[in-house]
Amino acid sequence: MISVEQALAAIVEGLHPTGGEIVPLAAAWRRVTASDIVARLTQPPHDVSAMDGYALRAADGQLGAVLRVVGNAPAGHPWSGRLAGGEALRLFTGSVVPDGADAILLQEDASRTDDRVTVNEAVRPGRHIRRAGQDFRAGDVLVPAGRQLTARDVGLIAAGNHPWVTVHRVPRIALLATGDEIAMPGEPIPPGGIVSSNSHALAALVRAAGGEPMVLPVAADDRDAITRAADAAEGADMLVTTGGASVGEHDLVQDALRARGLTLDFWKIAMRPGKPLMFGRMGRVPLLGLPGNPVSSLVTAILFLVPAIERLAGLAGHPLPVTMATLGEALPANDHRADHLRAHLSAGEDGGLVATAFPRQDSAMLRLLTQSDALIQRPPNAPALAAGAPVPIIRLDTLGL
Amino acid sequence: MISVEQALAAIVEGLHPTGGEIVPLAAAWRRVTASDIVARLTQPPHDVSAMDGYALRAADGQLGAVLRVVGNAPAGHPWSGRLAGGEALRLFTGSVVPDGADAILLQEDASRTDDRVTVNEAVRPGRHIRRAGQDFRAGDVLVPAGRQLTARDVGLIAAGNHPWVTVHRVPRIALLATGDEIAMPGEPIPPGGIVSSNSHALAALVRAAGGEPMVLPVAADDRDAITRAADAAEGADMLVTTGGASVGEHDLVQDALRARGLTLDFWKIAMRPGKPLMFGRMGRVPLLGLPGNPVSSLVTAILFLVPAIERLAGLAGHPLPVTMATLGEALPANDHRADHLRAHLSAGEDGGLVATAFPRQDSAMLRLLTQSDALIQRPPNAPALAAGAPVPIIRLDTLGL
Repeated sequence: MISVEQALAAIVEGLHPTGGEIVPLAAAWRRVTASDIVARLTQPPHDVSAMDGYALRAADGQLGAVLRVVGNAPAGHPWSGRLAGGEALRLFTGSVVPDGADAILLQEDASRTDDRVTVNEAVRPGRHIRRAGQDFRAGDVLVPAGRQLTARDVGLIAAGNHPWVTVHRVPRIALLATGDEIAMPGEPIPPGGIVSSNSHALAALVRAAGGEPMVLPVAADDRDAITRAADAAEGADMLVTTGGASVGEHDLVQDALRARGLTLDFWKIAMRPGKPLMFGRMGRVPLLGLPGNPVSSLVTAILFLVPAIERLAGLAGHPLPVTMATLGEALPANDHRADHLRAHLSAGEDGGLVATAFPRQDSAMLRLLTQSDALIQRPPNAPALAAGAPVPIIRLDTLGL
Repeated sequence: MISVEQALAAIVEGLHPTGGEIVPLAAAWRRVTASDIVARLTQPPHDVSAMDGYALRAADGQLGAVLRVVGNAPAGHPWSGRLAGGEALRLFTGSVVPDGADAILLQEDASRTDDRVTVNEAVRPGRHIRRAGQDFRAGDVLVPAGRQLTARDVGLIAAGNHPWVTVHRVPRIALLATGDEIAMPGEPIPPGGIVSSNSHALAALVRAAGGEPMVLPVAADDRDAITRAADAAEGADMLVTTGGASVGEHDLVQDALRARGLTLDFWKIAMRPGKPLMFGRMGRVPLLGLPGNPVSSLVTAILFLVPAIERLAGLAGHPLPVTMATLGEALPANDHRADHLRAHLSAGEDGGLVATAFPRQDSAMLRLLTQSDALIQRPPNAPALAAGAPVPIIRLDTLGL
């Protein structure tokens, strides 16, 4: 058996980011840049005023001075002249500071009568002027390749004058559920059958991770049905199977897919919930085999499939972020398998997070998993912990997972 | 001036969730439920085995006993008979436990020869049996109304046998940027003009918050242009304006929209960056006026627009979650305005978060905002803080904002 860390490293190493495509900026949010995005202009393009007021020569801005107002320059309507001694130009936040001026008299520090303005507070040279290029200069890298674009990034790219962005193609993730007992919601349920939940939950998780799901028809527990369904995954960037057979999970799936060229890298991981897992390749398509049990399927997807999709999408493929919380109730020592305890979060007295594991950790209880705010990480052979001890957690509540 | 908290409370109070619509389960991720979702079946529907092995009567499961295997019941293929004394049924994880049986002999605790199986480890009654309804029962509320659906919820709803879900309609948020100096990326830039970044950043932020943006044509700084553009917002669930005029932000927008029935609730908030802000209603459409400065526009959008959209989408409209971090560098005392310092996060020695404010907090520096992982909250009149002090932060790095 290999560790969770070894398994994830092997998966991510076996994956390559998708190619690039051009998308309009309006569709670029959450996409991952495939190249550096370089500013096409300088921002601000000229020295501009940071406040409403008057541009003048600093030497003219002594307390009590009276200047002649030679013009009015709203933002977007620059004044084209050159400011001479004894002159002032009315301007506003964002207005271009005219040639000859090197100070701003604030509106609230000025009295205006017709075309005369009186200085009620001495100016300081350069103050309230935003210099050309203060935010960025043409040629600066605004956003590096390999970044998942936030709303703020989208604004910055717009300001850099890019209507289009080159991003990695959204990875297509084919999802294959197998099992004679599986029905789709709303369809007739066979005797002893259950309604499929894995492919629906995984399809949503694929979206949360930045991929596009492709839900393949449910395959019955026989070789032909499984190979037929898997053939449909040829155009995908990854094939994810869940469950696989009644006799030893994955056995039938492995058998069937070997006929299609499946090679397996590994398939046993020292973790709970979640064994067995398999990772390999069917022709050019990477394959990740998740357990059939819904809780195990989702927890292993959170630990392995999310980073795998992020890697395919052009990111690093790091594990989900781990934060620290305080333990709400004591935990016993752990055995040799890494454990991931379903837990709820609350706010402690100091405003920090308190994580309390649910008393029942049965891997068949999907409802309990949906009520969990976090997974408490328990490394192999972790010692018993008292309430109040710091523990690493993976937050589920903020990720749409 | 009113406080940030008062402003948000007034905004959220003035908003009502959109009506419901039916969407396929495959499109339900991140949508907000408009009604309780009730289980249509019991899960598991029968007592099922939690392991691969044999079903038998507990009384027959003594060490060394030899039982006759009367059948084979893979998951999805229940055995219809009634198990008698001295009999065992081969079954697998998820298989229905037959009538008459009340114990499971694990596969690894059994030796099989033809139709005989020997008990190598005494069984315990009920052990390894998942009782009917252990996860949920028909009629249980699986997901309450008003919940934003996670991937896990989607799986649970599928398991509850729902192919369709009733959710709140995605709020349509009209975005109106005004200003003679504004050009769209890639289009000719007027003299003294800048490229619009606000509406692009806000459109992405609207998506991040669960809304659908509608970017209105940029309106020049005149009344007619602004009223024409605002008319296009009639079908929207909210109109968001940015900037508004060179002479006193919003003045021209207020003037123009008053002719269309604008009523204002408030417009000055004791905060930085971000004044002035306005909130009101134009006919039946709520209106939120954000500052024109890109950093102020985004920070106020994070504080007010995100909760507003969440409220329209059917959620509570709470402020973004605040977590605690340790201060990386000392901060001076704050004045009477709530401040939101752009900061980067790093990991402390104990694994906790360390937040360090950027030395320059100029509200014209959009690039710096995109490099911020968090906003450090500084309440009005907050005292100076030493490095290492706990501070409340709003994380930006995990929200797609």
